[in-house]
Amino acid sequence: MFTKNQAKFISSLKLKKNREEYGVFVAEGVKIVNEIVSSGIKIKQIFSSKNFQLSLFNYDIEIVRIKESELKKISSLTNPNQVLAVCEIPKYKLEISSLKDKLTVVLDAIQDPGNLGTIIRIADWFGVDDIICSEDTVEVYNPKVIQSTMGSIARVKVHYKNLPDFFEKLKFKYPQLNVYGALLDGENIYKQKLGKAGVLVIGNESKGVSAEVQTYINHKIKIPHVPHEAITDLNNAPESLNAATATAIICNEFRR
Amino acid sequence: MFTKNQAKFISSLKLKKNREEYGVFVAEGVKIVNEIVSSGIKIKQIFSSKNFQLSLFNYDIEIVRIKESELKKISSLTNPNQVLAVCEIPKYKLEISSLKDKLTVVLDAIQDPGNLGTIIRIADWFGVDDIICSEDTVEVYNPKVIQSTMGSIARVKVHYKNLPDFFEKLKFKYPQLNVYGALLDGENIYKQKLGKAGVLVIGNESKGVSAEVQTYINHKIKIPHVPHEAITDLNNAPESLNAATATAIICNEFRR
Repeated sequence: MFTKNQAKFISSLKLKKNREEYGVFVAEGVKIVNEIVSSGIKIKQIFSSKNFQLSLFNYDIEIVRIKESELKKISSLTNPNQVLAVCEIPKYKLEISSLKDKLTVVLDAIQDPGNLGTIIRIADWFGVDDIICSEDTVEVYNPKVIQSTMGSIARVKVHYKNLPDFFEKLKFKYPQLNVYGALLDGENIYKQKLGKAGVLVIGNESKGVSAEVQTYINHKIKIPHVPHEAITDLNNAPESLNAATATAIICNEFRR
Repeated sequence: MFTKNQAKFISSLKLKKNREEYGVFVAEGVKIVNEIVSSGIKIKQIFSSKNFQLSLFNYDIEIVRIKESELKKISSLTNPNQVLAVCEIPKYKLEISSLKDKLTVVLDAIQDPGNLGTIIRIADWFGVDDIICSEDTVEVYNPKVIQSTMGSIARVKVHYKNLPDFFEKLKFKYPQLNVYGALLDGENIYKQKLGKAGVLVIGNESKGVSAEVQTYINHKIKIPHVPHEAITDLNNAPESLNAATATAIICNEFRR
């Protein structure tokens, strides 16, 4: 039985304040829901049209069958895809000591939900366990972020921290750890010796890395631009790459 | 003087059939409009609120001043940014012989406007002059595509072709030219000797490269996935990277 009040509650989770109040977020679609089922994130409720089957056989959770028209009403998607899950927001604890030997991504005020989702997907591809976001980064449980992670949200831990505070602690504990920052005045990344471990800082889509966070960066890097042969006017060139694109290329440089 | 009929005409350009009928598209915002002004694309009309100035001094085009409220009405953006330009759709001719010594990107049925826009921006960054799209790729003059190019639309030529037809001609003229395809069953890209020239095929977001186009690929490549240390279940891994992300990483591999 799917009640009006249930529909109202799920729709209310489109707003951040309600997600925070109830400690839950919504994930949609066969692929993403199945990825969450097989992760450590706890699912509270599943609503599904059709004969949606969980991929894990013995997973002990009730599936509420609803009509296509009901799913459409509670969904954030233009074309809902069979299933919607209400999931518990996981409470991850960030252990500074776990970062010593790993590559970690730090995001300074990323604003676009699609960018954050894509960056989580990139981190998952390249085995980055943790993403540390400034407190003014877009909220990770925004439905647009969740959907663009394509399920990677189930395997990458996203933390929100005061970044100067985080970097002070990191520096105190591991003063030798490399902190790389993608900056337009950085050094050619192809000429850097990138170690296996380090922190990579990616800045806001239009303003880049904030001045305060820049003080913690000890390796400024950039991805060189290759001009078109036919364009000789140096002012007629792209200013930058998209934040998610830059993250992808730099993570690839670390892993290749 | 900004008339109701002008407003109606510009709003009508949100639809593809009207863009095609009149041979024009709309670009918005200070940065993008200025990039187009300094390119070969011809601007037919500029509508601007505030004191928008063209960056090129002697550019001979009339600017119609309109109110913020009027701009808001004709804009495709949630937050319009001072200026909207109606631009002529350029008619590029694709010369197969020009592709011999260059890196060229081929898109097979990319559907997401943000992906196409981001790929154009990536091509611009890495000096790729031409992008060849299958006829079922999303239309490049869709406002969402134009805006996500961040002005790179002014420097990258996008062509729509029947891909098998294009590849037959290419093969006939340059049988030795390398055709690379990003495929899940490809070879580790880090172990490939990538030349300076070649064609890179990127497939649809969910279906990948179509079977027919795959027959023209002579180097199947993939970007290796790095598992998280804590996750040992091989089925619990991301399936793929986003199409624009893969394009960025592979173009970087060609240029590094």
